[in-house]
Amino acid sequence: MDQWQPLTVPVQANPVGNVEERRLAAPGLAISTVIFALKPSETSGRPTLWLPLVRRIREPFKGQWALPGGPLRHDESLPEAASRNLLDTTGLAPRYLEQLYAFGGLHRSPAQRVVSIVYWALVQPEEAELPGEEENVRWFRADKVTDLAFDHQEIVDYALWRLRNKMEYASIAFHFLGEYFTLAQLREVYEAVLDKPLDPANFRRHVTNAVGIEPSDRYLQGGKHRPPRLYRYTGPAPSSTPRTAPNTARNPS
Amino acid sequence: MDQWQPLTVPVQANPVGNVEERRLAAPGLAISTVIFALKPSETSGRPTLWLPLVRRIREPFKGQWALPGGPLRHDESLPEAASRNLLDTTGLAPRYLEQLYAFGGLHRSPAQRVVSIVYWALVQPEEAELPGEEENVRWFRADKVTDLAFDHQEIVDYALWRLRNKMEYASIAFHFLGEYFTLAQLREVYEAVLDKPLDPANFRRHVTNAVGIEPSDRYLQGGKHRPPRLYRYTGPAPSSTPRTAPNTARNPS
Repeated sequence: MDQWQPLTVPVQANPVGNVEERRLAAPGLAISTVIFALKPSETSGRPTLWLPLVRRIREPFKGQWALPGGPLRHDESLPEAASRNLLDTTGLAPRYLEQLYAFGGLHRSPAQRVVSIVYWALVQPEEAELPGEEENVRWFRADKVTDLAFDHQEIVDYALWRLRNKMEYASIAFHFLGEYFTLAQLREVYEAVLDKPLDPANFRRHVTNAVGIEPSDRYLQGGKHRPPRLYRYTGPAPSSTPRTAPNTARNPS
Repeated sequence: MDQWQPLTVPVQANPVGNVEERRLAAPGLAISTVIFALKPSETSGRPTLWLPLVRRIREPFKGQWALPGGPLRHDESLPEAASRNLLDTTGLAPRYLEQLYAFGGLHRSPAQRVVSIVYWALVQPEEAELPGEEENVRWFRADKVTDLAFDHQEIVDYALWRLRNKMEYASIAFHFLGEYFTLAQLREVYEAVLDKPLDPANFRRHVTNAVGIEPSDRYLQGGKHRPPRLYRYTGPAPSSTPRTAPNTARNPS
């Protein structure tokens, strides 16, 4: 029976090593983030899914766009590293990041094997402002990104797949819209994520029966017509984010 | 903007270093597995949830029980490492392992920080036979394990929580029972996972309406009474295991 103790691997700031040494090196560990927000389409103006990307300023994949990310520091938990890397690279600070998946293919990076633990968040408009959009940090239409660095296209596709599967839960609206929303706003979220128009009457019937929302006694202010009623999200669906998800910031031992 | 390249960290088989160097070392990476199977309760004989554990034969946590696990080798994908470590430590070879979660708290292991990517599987009885149960590898009642090494109790609790949340999908029965099952067998799975008795008539009404199963034209053979009809699982629910889950064995770049 092969019982294993992790090797203690001191960090070398300026590593030297031949090809074989690099090949056998312990895998590196990176933390990346996928941030989805609803923003108006450039053409129709309707809400669509966008995500922030960072242009790589060195090799490998120099000049290509990549997910915000970086290393895991010795004194921070996985979600802390995700937040800090996101803030460092984009200036964004979502209130909550959730673990999406660990990607560990053999050839994700040419120099050294890297395992990336990816976090993701759905953010509301006020959280989605880049503090001065610059040449190397920009929002992109999620369904139109191509030619990303590393395997980041695969990661984005997987995140979109997971997001579409979460659409059965109204909590999706809560994350994108805030606590109160109209049925039209909720429908726009579904249309943006599913990338297709939905019949308003059918949609109303479906969501008021099937997902965890309830009408509130508030109405949307400021419109020209009869103000529409605001709805509230009433609670997490069973498979949504666990309340008891492990808090990796705590000391688990 | 802090763009980051992973450090190349050569493996040292016999590391030397003082406390400070160990503290600042790059995090180690481990792959562990949680395997759930239904086995008869020691007392009632009814199906209950069990999982295999491995007794640690060295420090830290020498003598305590731990999840099967081990290192990620340079030439294997994450799921390959999960399968190989599980086979090495227990002899078990589930057909399918799914990624559960990455645990990366700061103090999971006393010597060096370790991030564990945990895989899990639900296995059928013929996959759950330890090839010669020995002193240091044994099945335990999932709801009765205590005093596990590292943060493995937290990992088991999280896996149980995820499992209970998956109960809305009939695929759970498929994983535990195989393609064909009676409604009584299905109810026993639910009772084992939820750890409470269920009313047979209510259960029948619920599952035939709400979950993805359908009656087959087969009947269970070998009983004394009128043979009960076998049901089939008809397809994955939207939130179950992705068909398009990233295949970390492929080269994603």
